[in-house]
Amino acid sequence: MEYQHEQTLAILDHTPATLQALLGGLPTAWTRAAAGDATWSAYDVVGHLLHGEQTDWLPRVRAILAHGEDQPFSAFDRTAMFTESAGKSLETLLEAFAVARTANLATLRGFALTPEKLALKGTHPSLGVVTLSNLLAAWATHDLNHLGQIVEVMAHQYAAAVGPWKTYLGILNRPILTE
Amino acid sequence: MEYQHEQTLAILDHTPATLQALLGGLPTAWTRAAAGDATWSAYDVVGHLLHGEQTDWLPRVRAILAHGEDQPFSAFDRTAMFTESAGKSLETLLEAFAVARTANLATLRGFALTPEKLALKGTHPSLGVVTLSNLLAAWATHDLNHLGQIVEVMAHQYAAAVGPWKTYLGILNRPILTE
Repeated sequence: MEYQHEQTLAILDHTPATLQALLGGLPTAWTRAAAGDATWSAYDVVGHLLHGEQTDWLPRVRAILAHGEDQPFSAFDRTAMFTESAGKSLETLLEAFAVARTANLATLRGFALTPEKLALKGTHPSLGVVTLSNLLAAWATHDLNHLGQIVEVMAHQYAAAVGPWKTYLGILNRPILTE
Repeated sequence: MEYQHEQTLAILDHTPATLQALLGGLPTAWTRAAAGDATWSAYDVVGHLLHGEQTDWLPRVRAILAHGEDQPFSAFDRTAMFTESAGKSLETLLEAFAVARTANLATLRGFALTPEKLALKGTHPSLGVVTLSNLLAAWATHDLNHLGQIVEVMAHQYAAAVGPWKTYLGILNRPILTE
């Protein structure tokens, strides 16, 4: 579908509670395990989402509204959570993400973005020219991407335990998401 | 990891609330849309999970405990939801799934499965000999598989809207789950 602002906000609004429902109280055997080199655990993914919420998405919205294409966005460190999350519990990260997302959504709604503003352009440091609606669609889709990554890395913990059922479980039979 | 019964129950226990948090109140543009032939919408997937909960997983547990390998399981109709869900709202399906899962988990816990029972064998109509722990691991992993399918089909609704970001969103750049 084409970009629809209220539907973008709906996805962004649902993610904190979804993460809490999916991961809250789960044993660390599920939440702290990766599935091979370059894969992230559920805990790593939540840290990545939190870091994006604190440093990436909303500052880029502001950059487009303030400067258009003139100033490229700051680069985003996609592995910052490996140091940022150190010593923090998953529950702490989930709570911090929910707080940051709620605040960011309030700010975003406050911008009262019109179709004209959604068509404004910015400059991504690697991808080049993007629109504000591209950015917001990517923010929501990035949530879905990483929810998919979390259930995938957890599913892989049981890749052997399911025995012959592996054949029927598509999530175990394709290249795993690595970031 | 090897099969661990309490950790299997933890996944099964989390799924109803996860589905509710992810999908409850979302616009139908997200929940009713598939992403091409042979793909399922989020609504279709919830109906599939409900049908499995009502007809497949627990009856197979009972079959292993009662008959071992002697009687193959009944086949499972993986597309029954296309008729079973007719006329039902997503909220109705989510609620029915939560009720069925809660009841099934209570029954499962009541079996007080020991390592010896978890090693008992049954016969899958297509896959051949499986253990009870294979079945239970598959039940939990099947939940994760279909949660992954839901976020994937939703992400694909914005495959164009994200513009240049598509490159960075792995969920949009690999074969989609079709069942």
